[in-house]
Amino acid sequence: MKAEIVSIGTEILLGEIVDTNAAYIASRLPALGIDIYYKHVVGDNLDRLAETIGRARDRSDLIICSGGLGPTQDDLTREAISAVMGEEPHVDPELEATLRGFFESRGVKMPETNIKQCWVIPSGRAIPNPRGTAPGWWIERDGKIIVAMPGPPTEMTRMWEKEVAPELLLRGSGTILVTRTIKTAGMGESTVDELITPLQESQNPSIGTYAKQDGVHVRLGAKAATEEEAWRLILPMDEEIKRRLGPVVWGVDDDTFESIVCDMMKERGVTLATMESCTGGLLASVVTDVPGSSSCFRGGIVTYQTETKIEAGVPASVIDDYGVISAETAREMARVARERMEASVGIGITGVAGPDEQEGKPVGTVHVAIDAIWEAPRVLSYTFNQGRTAVKRRAVTTALGLLRQSLLTHRNESLV
Amino acid sequence: MKAEIVSIGTEILLGEIVDTNAAYIASRLPALGIDIYYKHVVGDNLDRLAETIGRARDRSDLIICSGGLGPTQDDLTREAISAVMGEEPHVDPELEATLRGFFESRGVKMPETNIKQCWVIPSGRAIPNPRGTAPGWWIERDGKIIVAMPGPPTEMTRMWEKEVAPELLLRGSGTILVTRTIKTAGMGESTVDELITPLQESQNPSIGTYAKQDGVHVRLGAKAATEEEAWRLILPMDEEIKRRLGPVVWGVDDDTFESIVCDMMKERGVTLATMESCTGGLLASVVTDVPGSSSCFRGGIVTYQTETKIEAGVPASVIDDYGVISAETAREMARVARERMEASVGIGITGVAGPDEQEGKPVGTVHVAIDAIWEAPRVLSYTFNQGRTAVKRRAVTTALGLLRQSLLTHRNESLV
Repeated sequence: MKAEIVSIGTEILLGEIVDTNAAYIASRLPALGIDIYYKHVVGDNLDRLAETIGRARDRSDLIICSGGLGPTQDDLTREAISAVMGEEPHVDPELEATLRGFFESRGVKMPETNIKQCWVIPSGRAIPNPRGTAPGWWIERDGKIIVAMPGPPTEMTRMWEKEVAPELLLRGSGTILVTRTIKTAGMGESTVDELITPLQESQNPSIGTYAKQDGVHVRLGAKAATEEEAWRLILPMDEEIKRRLGPVVWGVDDDTFESIVCDMMKERGVTLATMESCTGGLLASVVTDVPGSSSCFRGGIVTYQTETKIEAGVPASVIDDYGVISAETAREMARVARERMEASVGIGITGVAGPDEQEGKPVGTVHVAIDAIWEAPRVLSYTFNQGRTAVKRRAVTTALGLLRQSLLTHRNESLV
Repeated sequence: MKAEIVSIGTEILLGEIVDTNAAYIASRLPALGIDIYYKHVVGDNLDRLAETIGRARDRSDLIICSGGLGPTQDDLTREAISAVMGEEPHVDPELEATLRGFFESRGVKMPETNIKQCWVIPSGRAIPNPRGTAPGWWIERDGKIIVAMPGPPTEMTRMWEKEVAPELLLRGSGTILVTRTIKTAGMGESTVDELITPLQESQNPSIGTYAKQDGVHVRLGAKAATEEEAWRLILPMDEEIKRRLGPVVWGVDDDTFESIVCDMMKERGVTLATMESCTGGLLASVVTDVPGSSSCFRGGIVTYQTETKIEAGVPASVIDDYGVISAETAREMARVARERMEASVGIGITGVAGPDEQEGKPVGTVHVAIDAIWEAPRVLSYTFNQGRTAVKRRAVTTALGLLRQSLLTHRNESLV
């Protein structure tokens, strides 16, 4: 089954919001045995919307739309699909009763503009949406399917999982795609590519390399009739690539730096405490994105002003001698965090997130220190000038990378 | 000038990464007087890529591609454009010298696969890329332009800003689009829509409403020959809409809850301190995303374990009596944060981010407390069950909303 995804909305077209729905839907199609060929974004314009949906319906079997199902005048997905199908929409009495009930239960009169959310056309049916007022549409005729889902991600994802995906699974093509992503750090894309070049001839699994924020990823994709069979194709290749790339491989698939590091800490009985300045709590937040991180993360302190650093226990003399933006201060922050929160490893981050320089040090200067009870402190200092949030994000990735290296030593020591 | 954007890469097509480049580029086009009609995503497939670029070139004047310029076998943008143009690529000696120099300066021999990054075709020229090894392409023939930029966002954005946008500005159409977004909170989309319905007839500026995570946005877009003229069209409408919507309006355009709140704090000489449990530092991180927040944000404590809360000063008796997940504990956290960091307002957040319930309280239970020196503490408790990161994000939005409300009182009091 060949599919195209159409994301609808002028806001998405103009880039005022990033289209996360299309990525979500696309990532769920391979496991249903559905091939995706194109994704499109069209604004709230009836002609262009109908043109895009019509062309997609000419060349593909399944068109999945999101957005444009709201109650307002610029929500035109229903109108466009009706035009493509050459069918007239009518108000469905059951949908109308449900929608009026929804508003009544909130003690509000239904605005009359909402009535078009009760429309259906002869070739279609509505898809329930308990999270909002816009039902979806499932339109099916001449062996082709058009699915329309609402734009708000929480409404769309629920509708996808509970209503659309199960229905599509029943119509599966018999061939599914399974992927494996091998994640590396500390090696350039061309070098990774050269090391695995002879393997790249492989068609099934196919192999691709991608430069990402957390390193280079190698992606294997295998097509087969069953998941088990696909894994039989992937696993030998997975092993061979890991053998060729060696220790630069740090994880696979959904592994993140933070999830890997939390797993390693739990395995070793290590606990972490942080003291952050320029990253403003982002490191703590990223670590606590990992489910179950409460067993290895003691806590963190965000010392955004110099005096709060001193109150937290960083010696004023170190700040006086070396400055707030210094390797020495970062090292003290790591030590104080570890000691104060009785953790086995502390991380300290200080730097200049911008927009202005500080102590004569340029924006993007960052010092990341790690103080673990099992080895001497490490500090990494660098300058990374790409804007405030990128500086924060990069500092957090650096800190997690340092922590991983330190935890690897911990294992080696305990093996001695 | 009519434009289409083509994002290239199987990873983007399959939704393994979200396409932020297309949003970035699209958001920059209106100010250049360029209309965007479509955005497309195509995988690393030569035929479909050439088909998409070819069709776009048939109906539009400008095609902007990103991705597929890497050195590896699945990077096919150059090949696809050459096919569309019917031209043969050749190695440019100057580009080759630059690229070999780049590798030499890093003490590495250039992998021979990189040579295709030195290609050009007769109708085109390379666009410099000091942030990476892949130059862009500017292809121009028969009054149509194809621009190809690398996929990594830091490389693409620099190339856009320094090389592509200035060139496109010179060819501007004489009509530009200026937008104004009015941001509201606490009112549903249909109600906002009804309040401004008669105005929606307006064609220039056009008016649209959008439900967003931080409330409903009303977006005005005006077309004119100059920015000044466009603003003359927008401002009376902007004023009228704000008058109709009243106090639910909290900001415009790039304003975020956090930027607004930081501005209000600076205006009032208020300083903030936080103590976070289930949000794990995200509130502190979001506040410190605002440039200049160091003047109003004292610091934060992430007390991810019960004992770290007690060590930080939350009375053990309160936790014993009411539980860690309670309005009372949140209130104590807010007070302790404010007092310990000598701030004028403290925020405390405790809750269950998941995946497991805690103290018999379900995942998504959150208590947000605010303790300001100018009024009695406020606590907001609710349950929001949408997954770990959504629970964190929503709690932070709630905290910033509470803080805004509290700061509004502060102004009123000081006016008395």
